[in-house]
Amino acid sequence: MQPAELKTESAAYVDANLTQLEYLALNSEMNLADGHARQALTTSQAVIIDSLPELFRMSAETPVEQLESRAHGAFFHALGQHEYPGADGRVLACYSSSVAMEILSRAVVTEIDQMALLHPTFDNIPDILRGVGITLRPIEEDLLHDADLPDSLLDSVGAVFVTTPNNPTGRVVDEERLRRLAEQCREHDVVLCLDTSFRGFDPRAQYDHYAVLEQVGCRWAVVEDTGKLWPTLDLKVGWLVTSANLNLPVDRIYSDILLGVSPLILTLVEHFARDAANGGFAELHEFIQTNRSVVRGQLAGLPGLSFPDLHSTSSVERVQVDGRSSMDIWAALREENVHVLPCHRFHWFNPAEGDRTIRFALARQTNLLESCAKTLRSILADG
Amino acid sequence: MQPAELKTESAAYVDANLTQLEYLALNSEMNLADGHARQALTTSQAVIIDSLPELFRMSAETPVEQLESRAHGAFFHALGQHEYPGADGRVLACYSSSVAMEILSRAVVTEIDQMALLHPTFDNIPDILRGVGITLRPIEEDLLHDADLPDSLLDSVGAVFVTTPNNPTGRVVDEERLRRLAEQCREHDVVLCLDTSFRGFDPRAQYDHYAVLEQVGCRWAVVEDTGKLWPTLDLKVGWLVTSANLNLPVDRIYSDILLGVSPLILTLVEHFARDAANGGFAELHEFIQTNRSVVRGQLAGLPGLSFPDLHSTSSVERVQVDGRSSMDIWAALREENVHVLPCHRFHWFNPAEGDRTIRFALARQTNLLESCAKTLRSILADG
Repeated sequence: MQPAELKTESAAYVDANLTQLEYLALNSEMNLADGHARQALTTSQAVIIDSLPELFRMSAETPVEQLESRAHGAFFHALGQHEYPGADGRVLACYSSSVAMEILSRAVVTEIDQMALLHPTFDNIPDILRGVGITLRPIEEDLLHDADLPDSLLDSVGAVFVTTPNNPTGRVVDEERLRRLAEQCREHDVVLCLDTSFRGFDPRAQYDHYAVLEQVGCRWAVVEDTGKLWPTLDLKVGWLVTSANLNLPVDRIYSDILLGVSPLILTLVEHFARDAANGGFAELHEFIQTNRSVVRGQLAGLPGLSFPDLHSTSSVERVQVDGRSSMDIWAALREENVHVLPCHRFHWFNPAEGDRTIRFALARQTNLLESCAKTLRSILADG
Repeated sequence: MQPAELKTESAAYVDANLTQLEYLALNSEMNLADGHARQALTTSQAVIIDSLPELFRMSAETPVEQLESRAHGAFFHALGQHEYPGADGRVLACYSSSVAMEILSRAVVTEIDQMALLHPTFDNIPDILRGVGITLRPIEEDLLHDADLPDSLLDSVGAVFVTTPNNPTGRVVDEERLRRLAEQCREHDVVLCLDTSFRGFDPRAQYDHYAVLEQVGCRWAVVEDTGKLWPTLDLKVGWLVTSANLNLPVDRIYSDILLGVSPLILTLVEHFARDAANGGFAELHEFIQTNRSVVRGQLAGLPGLSFPDLHSTSSVERVQVDGRSSMDIWAALREENVHVLPCHRFHWFNPAEGDRTIRFALARQTNLLESCAKTLRSILADG
């Protein structure tokens, strides 16, 4: 492809959302676009998959209440979330974190029409919120981590939404900041919403958020996700967890959308979570760390290239290239059948801020990542 | 429970939606509430379940485009839907028919705020449509089947929504009526939306709807569902299929909610659909017919009791009891741990019309249905 054609290619897709760019990658062997888990099964995970017929029959014979309770028990405890409200119907199993997000958004908009949202973050969060009719105000990431939120912001919104660890930056709201944020939300009667879908990759995000939220007593909702962690072919659960005082019609809207997730998926989540607690998470963290090192190693020393998220342990990695637009690099990589994400759409309030970064997914086979990083290196070295 | 307590019980739940009543039944062994498939696997279905580990590995190695195409190919062809637009991205795989419904509703409301909807029908359809902000006008079932829709109605709405076969009545829009309805919609530039989730139970609903819709050329959308047919523990797909001229942001909203359904679920649907085409559907129809006969036989001869849907072949059966409220019967059955649905909420425009009917789910083991029908008989015989 010639430069002029590359320009046409990038122009054609510049307004596509991130998921639409992910579709383009789905059938490619060099798909580093979406954040789904596409690495190989570990030995102990393969044993679980081998037992699927028995798990199916066991699930068919067990009351779904027990399966749900075992699944969220294993998952939340593996992630250090011991004070989650598992016993009183405040943990709703959804088909995915995005379905949980859709249900939460529809519940929120019945009372709230202005919301503050972390900037940048994955674009389907602002798109779903805006899609149901909510107006958004950005919270810059530095502001969130460095100081209290301005009273004027909190007075102007009914809810605050924070992704932690954030996607794509990997930044984590620490316990002290979460407590203060929850206190501010309580003082302003603002609902605090968290998306913690990537917390399984980062021990710093595994302090007990529910203990903090319940102690502070603000109105809150948390979206949890099993879908980013394990190569279960997208058999996953997104959980929507809410405070007893939330007082939004979450249950009702949930009941409009689903009766429940598959009993087999609940069982699978339970088994993968137990495996994770028994060493699987450590193995996963080491695997992602290896992949991150491979990408950084392959790209080291290229002029103008940097890694903005030096402390991230998440399963995605941003690469910044000064002097080259992300859509341009995206199109050049695509020409080589390598798919990544350009980052402008993560910057939902100011896309220009993402114009120099692309995102690599790391939950892939290591040799695939190495080969894709080499392709990027050769594209950048050729100018 | 004494009559006074029964009254309290029914009063407490009279405003619950049908899915909320279905939750109450989920952990009971005598759950005839929801329309999910809870019968035993047939011999050939059990063979598929036994091969889950191999299907998992094959699915992991196959491009998802191929898995999708095989899944909808097998499913739509098994149901006689040969002209469905499978080749050009107009068949979107969703986690469930309700997720397809949510996506369609969110797309519709960007252009349309008034819609006509079949009355009665399952209450999550009006609830989702109203939940996104659409105002509904009822289409009585007799009117739909007997004559053209009034011009005044079509002039006042942007879309018409019809469930066929209907839930709970089992009534099917025949080919001639569908063609006329599509023509009327085309003439009035009204979008025709169909939910055909129960069509697998009824050969009368298996003429090629897509051939009719495409020939007439109106704007249309169809929700299809694998979820009611087979005891796959709710591993299922809801498909959202749209006309090329629909011109609503369905693709964009789909991309806000999901990247795709599980490759393993696609493979499972393909295999169950092939099994269905090779005799599985005939076996299913016979099974449901047996269960319907057992229920009707057990309840025959009770004074004031009748079966309003004499020609239904669907996996649900309504029972009408003159002189007794459906909530009252529901509560009395629940006291015996038998769960059914009272029908008032199906009548979303006029709940009083459903006050004398309850709905039995038939996709259950035959001996369970027999025992539950006996319980109802004894409750009614005791007055």
